[in-house]
Parts: sequence; C-alpha cells; structure tokens
Amino acid sequence: MKFTCTKNELANALRIVSKAIANKPQTPVLAGIYVRAEENQLELQATNYELGFVSRIQAEVETPGQIAIGGRYFLEVVNKMPGDTITISLDDDARTVHIQSEKVNFTLLSMNPAEFPVIRPLDGNLQFTIKDNVLRTLIKKTSFACSTDEGKPVFTGCSLVVDGTEVTMAASNMHRLSVMKETFDEPIGSIRIIIPAKILNEILHSASSDIPSDITITCSYNQISFVLDNLYMTSRLIEGTFPSYSRVIPNSFATHVQVDTAAFTAALDRVSLIARSDEYNVVKMDFRNKQVHLMARNPEVGDADEYVSAEIDGPDVQTAFNAQYFIDVMKALDSSVCRIGLNQELSPAAVREADNDKFIYVVTPVRTAH
Amino acid sequence: MKFTCTKNELANALRIVSKAIANKPQTPVLAGIYVRAEENQLELQATNYELGFVSRIQAEVETPGQIAIGGRYFLEVVNKMPGDTITISLDDDARTVHIQSEKVNFTLLSMNPAEFPVIRPLDGNLQFTIKDNVLRTLIKKTSFACSTDEGKPVFTGCSLVVDGTEVTMAASNMHRLSVMKETFDEPIGSIRIIIPAKILNEILHSASSDIPSDITITCSYNQISFVLDNLYMTSRLIEGTFPSYSRVIPNSFATHVQVDTAAFTAALDRVSLIARSDEYNVVKMDFRNKQVHLMARNPEVGDADEYVSAEIDGPDVQTAFNAQYFIDVMKALDSSVCRIGLNQELSPAAVREADNDKFIYVVTPVRTAH
Repeated sequence: MKFTCTKNELANALRIVSKAIANKPQTPVLAGIYVRAEENQLELQATNYELGFVSRIQAEVETPGQIAIGGRYFLEVVNKMPGDTITISLDDDARTVHIQSEKVNFTLLSMNPAEFPVIRPLDGNLQFTIKDNVLRTLIKKTSFACSTDEGKPVFTGCSLVVDGTEVTMAASNMHRLSVMKETFDEPIGSIRIIIPAKILNEILHSASSDIPSDITITCSYNQISFVLDNLYMTSRLIEGTFPSYSRVIPNSFATHVQVDTAAFTAALDRVSLIARSDEYNVVKMDFRNKQVHLMARNPEVGDADEYVSAEIDGPDVQTAFNAQYFIDVMKALDSSVCRIGLNQELSPAAVREADNDKFIYVVTPVRTAH
Repeated sequence: MKFTCTKNELANALRIVSKAIANKPQTPVLAGIYVRAEENQLELQATNYELGFVSRIQAEVETPGQIAIGGRYFLEVVNKMPGDTITISLDDDARTVHIQSEKVNFTLLSMNPAEFPVIRPLDGNLQFTIKDNVLRTLIKKTSFACSTDEGKPVFTGCSLVVDGTEVTMAASNMHRLSVMKETFDEPIGSIRIIIPAKILNEILHSASSDIPSDITITCSYNQISFVLDNLYMTSRLIEGTFPSYSRVIPNSFATHVQVDTAAFTAALDRVSLIARSDEYNVVKMDFRNKQVHLMARNPEVGDADEYVSAEIDGPDVQTAFNAQYFIDVMKALDSSVCRIGLNQELSPAAVREADNDKFIYVVTPVRTAH
C-alpha cells in the first residue's frame, strides 16, 4: 500500500476519528486507526465498539491496500511533519509503515488490519435527512442537561422522538429538563430512541458550520449513524425508556420575567463564586421592583449580592436555584433577552428564549432555610 | 479602612502576589493576602515563608488601615467585578470586608491582619542594581537547567557568583550545565549564593519588559530580595555550596558545527516523539557530510530519522543525547544560528549562540548500544 495526501487534511481526519479511541482500549487493535486506500481515496476508521468514526479524504493512491497504526503516534507524527504533503507506505513485510515528508522519515510498527473491526454502513429501519444547523441547535439546547451518572443510563443521553413531521429532543438529570422541538416539511416516520450525549457532543464539535449541509440519520433498534459530508459517525443507543416529562412542564406561569441574557449570566457567574463550594451551589433570587436580586452566602467565605434590571409581570417571587443549572441554560440561549416563568417559591421555573416557543427549560428550585 | 482603586491594577497586583501563597499554607493566615492602605497607596503582600511578594498600587484612600483576605476568593471576586473601579472597605466590627462595584456587593470574611507575618525590606550586606533585561537573560539562559529533585537542593537553584565587575549565573542537574556571564561597568562587590529556581522563574514572568528598568538586588547570608518598579520579591537562599564546574567545560573542541536553530529544534522535537516514552529520551546524532542525521528508535513504536543541514568543521562524530536536554537549550537561545562543539562520542558537547561567548551549555552524551 502506498499513497500521498495533503498533510492538513490527513491531520484533521486523524484528529476527528481518534476521538473514538477509548482511553483503555479493550483489545490492542482498538488503539489503532485503520486506513484503507483505494481509488484516490483514503478511508480512516476508529472505534471503541460504543462509538465508531469513519472519515474520507482525497489521496493519490499508488498501490491500494489497508493498514492499522497506533492512533496516538500516528496523529502526533502527522501533526509534526514538515511540508504540505505526506507519503505513507506499507513495508513489503507488512510489519512497518513508512511516513515520509521532505527529509523526515518515520517508521511506525503496523498492526494487523485484518483484526480491526471494520465499521460497515448501518442498515436501519428509519432514515431521514436534517440540516446540520437544525441538528446542532437541537443538540446544543438539550445535551448539556444530561446527567453524567452512569448509574442512571437513560439520563446520560438525549431522548429523540420523531412523530410524523415533528422531531423532539429532550434531556434531563431529574432536577432540570431541556426540550427542543423542530417541525419538518414532510413526515419522516416514527421513532423513540435515547442517543448517548457523547456522540451528540462530538457532532456538535465535528460538524463544520461554514456551509450549511445535510446530515443523514439512520436508526436501527440499537444503533444510530450520522453521515456528514466526508464523515460517518455511528453509536450504540441507550437501552431503556425515557420517562414521560410532559407533566413536569408547567401549563402556565403567574409571574413572567424578562432579563438581559448576558447581564444575568454575568451576575450569576459572579454571585455563584461564593456558592459553588457548597454541594447545591445555591443562589437566591428575589424577583421584585423591576429587578432580580441575586444572593449567595457561604458561612466560611462570605456573601455576594447583586441586582439585575428585569421586566416583571405578576406577583413578586422569592426562590432559589442551583446556580450552575441556570448558568448552563443561559449559555445555550441564542436570544439576547431571556424569559423566565415562575409560580410559587418551590414550583419549577421555566427559561425560554425571547421569540422561540420551540424551546423550554424547566428547573426545580432548591429549598433554603430563610 | 476604605479605599477605591482601578479594578485592573488591583487584579494584576493580586495575580502577582498570590503566586507566593502555598498550596497548603502552614497557618490559615498564610492563605491570605495582606493589604495596607495609606497615603493614596495600597501595599499587597503574600508569603509562604520561603517566598514573599509585595506589590504597590495607587488608590484613593478614604480611611487608612489594614486587612487580610483569603487570597483565592479575593483574586476571583476582583477578576469578575464589573466596571473600572472597585471600592473596598472593612466593616466596623472588623470581621468582614466589603468589595463593591456598580450594583455588585461582595462581603468576604476578614482574617486578622495582625497575625500576618508582614514582609519587611531586607537589610543585606550586598546591594547592586541590574537592568531587568540583563537579569532576565541570565535567568532565561540558566534556570531551565536546574534539577527538580529536592533530594539534591543545591541543584534546584541557580548559582550566582559576583566578583568585582563580573556576574556569573549557573545551573546544573549533573547531566547538563548552563553558564551565563555578564560584566558590569563598576565593581559591585563579592558574593557566592544559590537562588531557588522558583523565585527566578517568577521574576522571568513578572518583570515587565515593555520599558527597560532597573532591578535592585539585596543579599544577606540567607536571603535575597529584588525590587522591580512597584514589586518587591524576597526569597530564602539555598544553603550549601554549588560544586565547582569549571573543569566540566571542555577547553577545546575537535569538531565545530553550526546549524539553524529553528530547523534543528523542529527536527529534535519530531524525532524525539519516538524516543520520549523511554526514560533517557535518546536521540542519536551523526555529524557528517554537511548534515546532522538525527535518529530515534523505540522497539514498541518504531523509529524516526531526519537530516538537518549543518556546517561541520573537524572529524565526523556519532553520538547520542537526551533529546529534552537539547530541546531545552535550543529554546533558550536568542541567535538564529547555533554552534555545537564536539570531541569524542562520549565526551561532553557544548551548545553556544552564534556570536556570544558569555553563554555556554554543556551536555553529557548518553551511552547507546550500537
């Protein structure tokens, strides 16, 4: 096998696929990146069985073939190579791979590519296409709300429900819930799955946003795949049933608040300096007199208070939240004004964007001693 | 106590002095930053007994006085404050400190400033003044060569020898030695001390280089202080005698090599990718035919080789070094061309700048199986 390709394209593809390599691979070959060269194209693959990434780039293929190389060294060597192009060839005895550019030669030990569990395109029972920016928005507005507690696996992923023309993504850690809906022009079928947050976050980082493009999603009963330009990503789905959350979302709010998203985020960030050493990271919020009064207290450090201007429509409310749960959602908002809906002191509150009813975030207050 | 000052100046002073706070302070008050406000000036202090930093900034002092506040929170709160100015005041009961800016109020618990071991100016037996860029060069060219092995304390600092008009700074970890000399216009006395690398590295990072300025150095038998503009830094000296190193420096070299500093550094950096998992990080160097041939081999990974153009005057030499010891010195060089002096395969080599005989770096080769 022998090919020549652009250094930067190869480095970029290696960087993406290497994210599927486990920190502690189950078998030695899973620490490797598999490369197949044929017909002026390279296919690079890595997998940890949970996740699998495949990236394709152009190359001048002199001799077709396949190799597998330890991912960590492969990526670092390519990154450090001088020049614009790199030539890679498998030694005649198939035991070493030569990586060459200008006056630099690396020889890395080759793994046996036949041992690599090559990723095949998923044959699913539902397939649909979604704009990359739409998918990214669905993920950005929900995946941050997932739990990281592996003991409750259904909360470590996002629920995806497709029902005709309606797509709903939701995530929760039981103290907060984030839900985003999108409507399609054409009905695309019906499915109800839980996608691991990890693959969704990789899509958020890998899907280039320069040119809007289509992402093809294929689902089987236990697996999902995403096809983006020259990148194929696949993941196992999370088994189990995502709890019904419709009754968690309040039907109405007694008090409607509007605040400047940036000013409120900065204030929360400051005030929570004092609160964050506490397990619950509690910031009290007093909504009255056209202001939100934010307060935090830590007997070992001191206290913080700050006022943020607000439009308040309805009765005054004094309540308290885990500051991080509020900061997380503020960072996911795309509107400069944020709407907060409140009822009683201990009733769940909602955070929404100014002019977007497709998104709602519900957060449960924290009980405090007054 | 009450004063108002510029937020950025205060944040900058806190950032500098807080570096003297130990990770695990010996007594609670040593986790604090001491502030004295008087006559339109603030003095901020922090110390861990080894190191002590004092920074002075302008302030509008309404009521003079002193406070001590937990350094970590003080720095973070000031950094996150909005607006350009900050007002800080001690509560009447002297138990809390108010930090206020715009609509933001923080109240931090006050420590007892009387418990803080206030840093007094050092009364030394030798005092001299040095240009900050001269001191920075002395440090930059030597301190990287120190050992981090606390079991051999004399090697964890730089030897400073002042003898009339001549100042010599040197550092070693026993496998390499870096020596830099400077000549003063006037004789400044005589001293022979070992300064901890930690304070020297702080000076390297703290001394602003925008405007050349003078640094006043005062030494006593066990302590040193540096006065830079509005910053006073003091440190204990390392006890013991720095070994005589003059016989380690070869008198002459059979082979003189000149290489491009950047090209040689990049090549070393690449080739050592393969070597660095090995304890000795060995890169072989073959100096012949107007080239340096760099080679590294790791039976578990593979091997690397690369050629760098060189001017070679004298017999061919094949030798081997710890790559990191070479990379470290290359990064400290200020000349685009680097001179390497060689004798036998296992004789110490020297690295120097193109036109600077004030600096020499000596590194011992590594024995390899051919």
